Amino acid sequence: MISKLAVVETSDIGENTRIAEFAVVRQGARIGANVVIHPHVVIADGVVIGDGVEIFPGAVLGKEPKGAGALSRTPVFERSVRVGDNSSIGPHAVIYYDVSIGENSLIGDGASIREQCTIGNKTVIGRQVTINYNVRIGNGVKIMDNSWMAGNMDIRDGAFISGGVFTSNDNDIGQHGYSDAHVVGPTIEEGAMIGVGAKLLPNIVIGKNAVVGAGAVVTKSVEAGTVVMGVPAKVVKRSE
Amino acid sequence: MISKLAVVETSDIGENTRIAEFAVVRQGARIGANVVIHPHVVIADGVVIGDGVEIFPGAVLGKEPKGAGALSRTPVFERSVRVGDNSSIGPHAVIYYDVSIGENSLIGDGASIREQCTIGNKTVIGRQVTINYNVRIGNGVKIMDNSWMAGNMDIRDGAFISGGVFTSNDNDIGQHGYSDAHVVGPTIEEGAMIGVGAKLLPNIVIGKNAVVGAGAVVTKSVEAGTVVMGVPAKVVKRSE
Amino acid sequence: MISKLAVVETSDIGENTRIAEFAVVRQGARIGANVVIHPHVVIADGVVIGDGVEIFPGAVLGKEPKGAGALSRTPVFERSVRVGDNSSIGPHAVIYYDVSIGENSLIGDGASIREQCTIGNKTVIGRQVTINYNVRIGNGVKIMDNSWMAGNMDIRDGAFISGGVFTSNDNDIGQHGYSDAHVVGPTIEEGAMIGVGAKLLPNIVIGKNAVVGAGAVVTKSVEAGTVVMGVPAKVVKRSE
Repeated sequence: MISKLAVVETSDIGENTRIAEFAVVRQGARIGANVVIHPHVVIADGVVIGDGVEIFPGAVLGKEPKGAGALSRTPVFERSVRVGDNSSIGPHAVIYYDVSIGENSLIGDGASIREQCTIGNKTVIGRQVTINYNVRIGNGVKIMDNSWMAGNMDIRDGAFISGGVFTSNDNDIGQHGYSDAHVVGPTIEEGAMIGVGAKLLPNIVIGKNAVVGAGAVVTKSVEAGTVVMGVPAKVVKRSE
Repeated sequence: MISKLAVVETSDIGENTRIAEFAVVRQGARIGANVVIHPHVVIADGVVIGDGVEIFPGAVLGKEPKGAGALSRTPVFERSVRVGDNSSIGPHAVIYYDVSIGENSLIGDGASIREQCTIGNKTVIGRQVTINYNVRIGNGVKIMDNSWMAGNMDIRDGAFISGGVFTSNDNDIGQHGYSDAHVVGPTIEEGAMIGVGAKLLPNIVIGKNAVVGAGAVVTKSVEAGTVVMGVPAKVVKRSE
Repeated sequence: MISKLAVVETSDIGENTRIAEFAVVRQGARIGANVVIHPHVVIADGVVIGDGVEIFPGAVLGKEPKGAGALSRTPVFERSVRVGDNSSIGPHAVIYYDVSIGENSLIGDGASIREQCTIGNKTVIGRQVTINYNVRIGNGVKIMDNSWMAGNMDIRDGAFISGGVFTSNDNDIGQHGYSDAHVVGPTIEEGAMIGVGAKLLPNIVIGKNAVVGAGAVVTKSVEAGTVVMGVPAKVVKRSE
């Protein structure tokens, strides 16, 4: 079930796994059983794939962050990726090194997840979503298509983030260089819901089960159960 | 004109068609005449490509929707894709099963179009645009780069949708699971124009030749010929 | 260091350069020394790659713009691409013909840069960013993930553009066809900072070191050093 036209340098491959033509699996990668690897996938060393995972064409697992002299922050990472059982990696998705993805999760087409991120179980990362470095994403989270999560964020269990949601982690928008202390993205707590096209500013907390309306620009923390809307976002309904 | 380094399992290929190195064309695919298939393209069974189509590197035609246990809606689809004569599929674009694309249409780089979608003739789908399931898009439509169209939408002939436009199909933003009855995206009627970065909420109609201003958040239906702006959008000019 | 499984038609390759499996490098391409070309990269004729460049899997350099009968503007371009020393091209990035990229610059995963664009040195183009035709981008510029730059724009040295920023170049939003005279994107001057999710309308100037707040919709020019916010954007702080 391993195509002769694939480049497979590892022998650590489970039963009944299929690897298609022109895929590249490097030495040191570990692939589970019943895995399907489509054409043109690249799996680097240090990547561990669970059982029953499907990896669609052109996905790249195990990318080194690259500064090219142009970034203010020097990337830090371990040379490993873990994908849990029965998860699915979409076509052209890019998973950097030092990323852990749980079980039964779905990474959408073209999504890109940077180093130092963890993603829970039964979580959906939509198409073209970009997740920056050091983001913790819980179980049962949904992030819909074309959203951008800034670096140094927390997204807790059951949070729902609609499409075109953009977050920020630096009130100085880059003018003072990078420091972990003042570059902190928002925290989205359990069950909070962020409407389509909302913007979340740095260093705020969206409380449990709070709701952020479509297109809102949230500049301050939102208490649990509260509904906010507008630009800038104002409370329209408090939790009882 | 078919590279010896391509994997071509079908013999149903028209005259003068070129297939480049490392492309994969599965048994059961039908390819027209004068088609250009660039390297690293994947064409699944059940895909029918018209004459004069160009498919750029890394495009994937015929992807199965994948739930991975994480989606609230179970995908429904037929195992077919149709691309009309002289259309163009950009690099890394992903066309799911059960999609029909008309003639002389242009699918941009990295665009992703889910199952149960139809796209008309002379229509442009921009780069990184994501179209969700069951969206009907007419003729002469333009959707510019990085926009997201929600599931269960109608976009009629000649509509113009600028870049970074995001739409929504669920006022409950996911909290009550999926049902076709209450999950309905907006309808954009003939010749309507949606400005850059606008957000459209569920179950509304943007009437014929209506104009939605840049960055507007549209929460209610807009009558034909009307101009709306703001957050939430208000009428600034009525049709005469 | 050139894989036997790559297709390499040029012999104009510098010392110590590595080309991985299933990459395609066409005749007429020129590749510098110490370059790393990952699997599934496509490099067309007329592409010139400097020393020390790294090109990640699936990147495409040298794409022809394609109208397919569906665009209002006929693309104009020279058949060349230049990538300066020590720059990095992300996985699945697409660089059209007639693009010049400076030294030590970083093009993100899935970014797409159209014809007639120039990009300076030490500039970062984020992931999934789409740059339209004829955009001039200076040195030390940062454009964060998922942003869209319209055609006919200027972005000067040291400008910072956050994620999810969308710009526009046509006040008639497409209704009168294309003409260079009335289709002009915004100019972003030296050191200006554009907040997350802001929208910039056509034919305006964001002055030197001006700041545009998160989610603002900017409809008029902003003077140097001024801070604007809101929808539509209003001045909240003037330059002293």
